[in-house]
Amino acid sequence: MFNKVLVANRGEIAVRIIRACRAMGIATVAIHSTADASALHAQLADEALCVGPASPLDSYLNQYAVLSAAVLTGAEAIHPGYGFLAENAKFARMCEKSDIAFIGPPPDPMERMGDKLYARRTMREAGVPITPGSLEALTSVDEALALANEVGYPVMVKAAAGGGGRGIRKVDGPEQMESAFSQATAEAQMAFGDGRLFLEKCVLDARHIEFQIIADAHGNVVHLGERDCSMQRRNQKLLEEAPSSALDGELRERMGRAAVAAARAVGYQNAGTVEFLVNRNHEFYFMEMNTRIQVEHPVTEMVTGVDLVQEQLRVAAGEPLSFTQKDIVLRGHAIECRINAEDPVHDFRPACGTVEMLHIPQGPGVRFDSGLYVGWQVPPHYDSMLGKLIVHGRDREDAIARMKAALMEIVVSGFPTNIDFELDLVSHPGFEAGSYDTSFIAREMK
Amino acid sequence: MFNKVLVANRGEIAVRIIRACRAMGIATVAIHSTADASALHAQLADEALCVGPASPLDSYLNQYAVLSAAVLTGAEAIHPGYGFLAENAKFARMCEKSDIAFIGPPPDPMERMGDKLYARRTMREAGVPITPGSLEALTSVDEALALANEVGYPVMVKAAAGGGGRGIRKVDGPEQMESAFSQATAEAQMAFGDGRLFLEKCVLDARHIEFQIIADAHGNVVHLGERDCSMQRRNQKLLEEAPSSALDGELRERMGRAAVAAARAVGYQNAGTVEFLVNRNHEFYFMEMNTRIQVEHPVTEMVTGVDLVQEQLRVAAGEPLSFTQKDIVLRGHAIECRINAEDPVHDFRPACGTVEMLHIPQGPGVRFDSGLYVGWQVPPHYDSMLGKLIVHGRDREDAIARMKAALMEIVVSGFPTNIDFELDLVSHPGFEAGSYDTSFIAREMK
Repeated sequence: MFNKVLVANRGEIAVRIIRACRAMGIATVAIHSTADASALHAQLADEALCVGPASPLDSYLNQYAVLSAAVLTGAEAIHPGYGFLAENAKFARMCEKSDIAFIGPPPDPMERMGDKLYARRTMREAGVPITPGSLEALTSVDEALALANEVGYPVMVKAAAGGGGRGIRKVDGPEQMESAFSQATAEAQMAFGDGRLFLEKCVLDARHIEFQIIADAHGNVVHLGERDCSMQRRNQKLLEEAPSSALDGELRERMGRAAVAAARAVGYQNAGTVEFLVNRNHEFYFMEMNTRIQVEHPVTEMVTGVDLVQEQLRVAAGEPLSFTQKDIVLRGHAIECRINAEDPVHDFRPACGTVEMLHIPQGPGVRFDSGLYVGWQVPPHYDSMLGKLIVHGRDREDAIARMKAALMEIVVSGFPTNIDFELDLVSHPGFEAGSYDTSFIAREMK
Repeated sequence: MFNKVLVANRGEIAVRIIRACRAMGIATVAIHSTADASALHAQLADEALCVGPASPLDSYLNQYAVLSAAVLTGAEAIHPGYGFLAENAKFARMCEKSDIAFIGPPPDPMERMGDKLYARRTMREAGVPITPGSLEALTSVDEALALANEVGYPVMVKAAAGGGGRGIRKVDGPEQMESAFSQATAEAQMAFGDGRLFLEKCVLDARHIEFQIIADAHGNVVHLGERDCSMQRRNQKLLEEAPSSALDGELRERMGRAAVAAARAVGYQNAGTVEFLVNRNHEFYFMEMNTRIQVEHPVTEMVTGVDLVQEQLRVAAGEPLSFTQKDIVLRGHAIECRINAEDPVHDFRPACGTVEMLHIPQGPGVRFDSGLYVGWQVPPHYDSMLGKLIVHGRDREDAIARMKAALMEIVVSGFPTNIDFELDLVSHPGFEAGSYDTSFIAREMK
């Protein structure tokens, strides 16, 4: 096992990783920007190095500075968390060359899954269902129109190198194709330096269901069940739960097998998430694979009892998985609400300020992952997600009741938050009934 | 189910009960002394009533004031927590007469288990092993000497109405009997208004192992496994864990059956704990039954997934147990460290002050139950236990590692605490090896 790990991230996920390392007896190095000098992750780690000014490009995304920090401190591995450098194959290769373990998949499968068209072709070959649409990049609007006609409207045109909701347009009919095509191309070129597009049929009334997988270097791949992440506002997840009320045992098993097949098809290692869309007829389609630990990983930890970050560290150190598929037994139900600094009065725009009061609910089945402490000034340069409130109950009803109680108890003051919104959400009859899809918030929570 | 419950306690257990009620949609009434007006439990509850001045006798133990508060607020039930009125059969009868449910056992089994001699006779009849010794109160020093001679020294003379370590003397040889007898009689008379004594053989190198049981009004009794509470300083528990490394599956099953038999023998209802001493030869002896929720109940919650306080509420409302014996499957390992305001430099005498900094560790498998918040002035009138840090791991080694990490992370400042002592304790090779008995701290942690 590693003696020292550098955590190349900030906020709650950096804190989460530091805690996992500490419980494994591994020394930690935090990196931080000048704006984060007093951040909790920098205080908790055994060592902390400043890697640049506030702007993420100059600090957390500065590959040379991050790698230098690891070399300088003698860290044997880098955990990238999510975001920032987590899905950067070039950085993973730089680590490899410097003989520093990158705690994530090897660069090749990471890169392959980053190319959405390559991923679609690979999944089709592996027998994993994909949405009807392109297998190669579109070369013209005419080709797009012909394909859309074949699969039926509405369709989506998407950046092949895409991610994060950029370079994506919905097309409801042929008259919208030309402008959607040129806009998406331009956006993709700008965001990714790669204007290639592909087209797929829209899955309507869909649920966003993702499977957690983890693979070691010895050919073992295990899935840890699904997370339902359909509660989204503008493609941003707000609430996640496990298991999903949309799946039955038979569908769970089929999708779990598909997720494992997807990981095997690209020679995947470490933790990853295979995202699917599921329609009302229980048909599912591969959407994409995220080659990192996800924000919402705690709901899986709650229902499986597995510490995913610790397991990532073990796998990255070459150890075999500490469990097999049949050891994974789902127990109870877990829900996560993301606590964001954002202003509900002003269309949920990100907010910042100083943490004045902080009261964290506790008790059986309650967990709060965050980088918050009283007196901390939330910097305006980063993500507005400040914490994750996660509860575990013996069934969905119990978990919802605990989440309501926890949201009523939690106090984070000093800036506006979405806590009341989350409470409204978990109290909504549509959520309580378990019958919601990705358009629920836009439709029901105006 | 009840609509409104009065919580007749303070500190972490009052907060714990309020949270359980809230997650069940039950309104809560807190009571508090004048010294506790700003305590967390008083702030969290839906209503809060002052029941008297700081002295416990005048407030939390003032039966008429507490009962009046329940009548006044329309509470349908009273949860006594632990300590204070929790094992007061007279108070339970007063509740009964006022048509208010007492969340605990009926007065009769509570009273029967409170009389240690009655409990010993009942256990013997039920086939539960008891230590060799008296079945009736001792009438003279000569009788005590004769019995001690029969069972062998060392022996303990104990108050029949006893509890809390008062009215107890260890007797190593006949020359000590007369003074021990008269001292214990006087102490028992003063503490309990009942000078009756009994005698039992000392169990040497013993472990304190207790079984959690819960019973409903429909004849169902289930045990939820054991807790090892051998880590004690002057009869005060400091660290508890579940399961115990001293038990194997066969002994666990035998002791669990004995605990259930003990509860059945007195017509027990609600949550209770059957305490045993276990010697190195795997022989176990009934010690006493605690007829209330225990401080250390969270370790059982962690390994069973059962919310014991919620289940207490359900059972008290007349519902059948929500699980059977075979539903209880122990998962992983849990440890609790009690966080006390006490001064290690001055022989761990209780301390108080104002909470200046508070940082609570979080993450998978970590729970902290407390009534602490920044700025709260800890009153000097009550128990020095301010919080309980509880961790859950996949096995004992993992749980110990998590506890170490959590104890290294937790910050409670403003007064001295035993946090460093607890860290020394969980880092001690004797604890890590799992081979400790009730004299471990006195012997090893000077």
